[in-house]
Amino acid sequence: MALRDARVTLAHGGGGRAMRDLIEEVFTSVFAPPGMEDQARLSAAALAAPGARLAFTTDSYVVTPIEFPGGDIGKIAVCGTVNDLAVGGATPLWLSAAFIIEEGTEIALLRRIVATMAREAEAAGVRIVTGDTKVVGRGACDGVFVTTAGVGVIAPGCEMAAACVRPGDVAIVNGVLGDHGATILAARGDLALATELESDCAALGHLMADLRAAAPGTRAARDLTRGGLASALNEIAGAAGCGIVIEEAALPLRAEVVGMCEILGLDPLYLANEGRLVAFVPEAEAEAALAALRARPEGAGACIVGRAVAEHAGQVRMRTAFGGSRIVDMLVGEQLPRIC
Amino acid sequence: MALRDARVTLAHGGGGRAMRDLIEEVFTSVFAPPGMEDQARLSAAALAAPGARLAFTTDSYVVTPIEFPGGDIGKIAVCGTVNDLAVGGATPLWLSAAFIIEEGTEIALLRRIVATMAREAEAAGVRIVTGDTKVVGRGACDGVFVTTAGVGVIAPGCEMAAACVRPGDVAIVNGVLGDHGATILAARGDLALATELESDCAALGHLMADLRAAAPGTRAARDLTRGGLASALNEIAGAAGCGIVIEEAALPLRAEVVGMCEILGLDPLYLANEGRLVAFVPEAEAEAALAALRARPEGAGACIVGRAVAEHAGQVRMRTAFGGSRIVDMLVGEQLPRIC
Repeated sequence: MALRDARVTLAHGGGGRAMRDLIEEVFTSVFAPPGMEDQARLSAAALAAPGARLAFTTDSYVVTPIEFPGGDIGKIAVCGTVNDLAVGGATPLWLSAAFIIEEGTEIALLRRIVATMAREAEAAGVRIVTGDTKVVGRGACDGVFVTTAGVGVIAPGCEMAAACVRPGDVAIVNGVLGDHGATILAARGDLALATELESDCAALGHLMADLRAAAPGTRAARDLTRGGLASALNEIAGAAGCGIVIEEAALPLRAEVVGMCEILGLDPLYLANEGRLVAFVPEAEAEAALAALRARPEGAGACIVGRAVAEHAGQVRMRTAFGGSRIVDMLVGEQLPRIC
Repeated sequence: MALRDARVTLAHGGGGRAMRDLIEEVFTSVFAPPGMEDQARLSAAALAAPGARLAFTTDSYVVTPIEFPGGDIGKIAVCGTVNDLAVGGATPLWLSAAFIIEEGTEIALLRRIVATMAREAEAAGVRIVTGDTKVVGRGACDGVFVTTAGVGVIAPGCEMAAACVRPGDVAIVNGVLGDHGATILAARGDLALATELESDCAALGHLMADLRAAAPGTRAARDLTRGGLASALNEIAGAAGCGIVIEEAALPLRAEVVGMCEILGLDPLYLANEGRLVAFVPEAEAEAALAALRARPEGAGACIVGRAVAEHAGQVRMRTAFGGSRIVDMLVGEQLPRIC
């Protein structure tokens, strides 16, 4: 063990021996990327089928606190990028992971994050194949930021996109909404909320594969991250040029999350999730889709929340429990910073 | 123009309308990524040749100051990732770009960074196809951090790697060393150094393509970033299991950079570069390699600095101008933080 430090110093970012030791002992010994080069070199055989396309996405993660009930920044970083690929119809294959680390960060914290990422990547069937570390001085970042990029393959003929949604399509979510946002809110501590909530953070690649197999006509899916269900639906309605109606009574929400939102004046429709998606499927495939989702733990709470309609194109409306109707707009302003 | 703010607020990271406006007006209107989905969907035709491999790399950039003579964080972010791909023998194709932005950052600064990135990407022949923005509160990061990931294609039969270097191979650099490191040092202002220096930051994809065409036996190349020439050579000597000897008299160094290093007690061999590489080529191809490099502006200063030897395996030595010899070790400790 060349790495004797308990905390990260600026020398760990300097390009020399200390940086090499940190990278080898904390990162590459766990991720075990292929080869010794600074870039991953990957067989393109998976992409060689005529008409196969490459899917490529990235996200930075700045969540605070870095560790929270149900996950940590590493889990979000792997799951978030896997989910971005999966909801677009891609099979996630490879991830990169870049770390910006504040001087003074505990090495033990880095090891926990890396262990989470390796575990989540393995479960999701992806490999973390390349990465980077930068160290900045105290106060120049807040602990650890992680940026993952992901590469996947889209099979020939798979054409999922928000623009493909048609009136009559059914909107399905895979479980209760808002647990992640509510968990982060409670974990920050300044609200003195005692709660048993855990983040819903989960990789949805296998779930999406099962959904596409059971409901091959699936038009589009979105992971419900910042901005929650409301923002995702608005985005889809805009791209598809149709309206969307959701039923308040059908929304899967824990009483605890609803209660927390009431206290804080938040709307659970906008709460962030990290393991939830909305999928639009043709009505004829809705039952098959629900059955496929419910067969996996991360889809056990799947239910229909609404449908696409020909009216009020580009707009999302909710039929309230009292029989009224209200517009569900995109989030205006800020609900909760650094949720992911 | 929906974006009227002069500075970034937390609302610009919230997942709602303000975030959408920021992304559309500042980022995607310039980068023009393909399609409206959150992931890029790219034709895999370039990878379809039997035996072609995919190259995948990432780096975070945290350079301070964000803008400096000869470039800015955006230029480094594009060039650095292009160079990582290119020195490994890949043709760079696509980049992702993820931004972590401090609340209060001037929108005008973001626009300048994005414009730089678009310009550099076009010149390098790559496309920025996907991205992300996160906003953190004041003091939670230092201005703007950028993380790029890059995907390229490695042609069948191209097998460049540090481990391929053989005794007798010639070590060539493409120009004067250390300008980037010295420029950043001076730009920080606390040394009160007046200088005309500019960063050497440049994309080296076309240069590497020309080098490989002229010297198809090129064994390996490395871009000389953090840790400078000394660290890159140590890495190569270790991977190849041979020694490397460089000639002090042959090192291309500006008098200004040497003088600055003398004043500050720095060794220019460890100074960072962002547009410099070292390539190892068989001696028989050295002249052709030099000619190809010198034919492009970013290789105009190409010269031989040393060679691989059978002796002192894994070790780098320098023959000094006075006829002595000293070991050139990996950088120990920190030379200059946040150089890239």
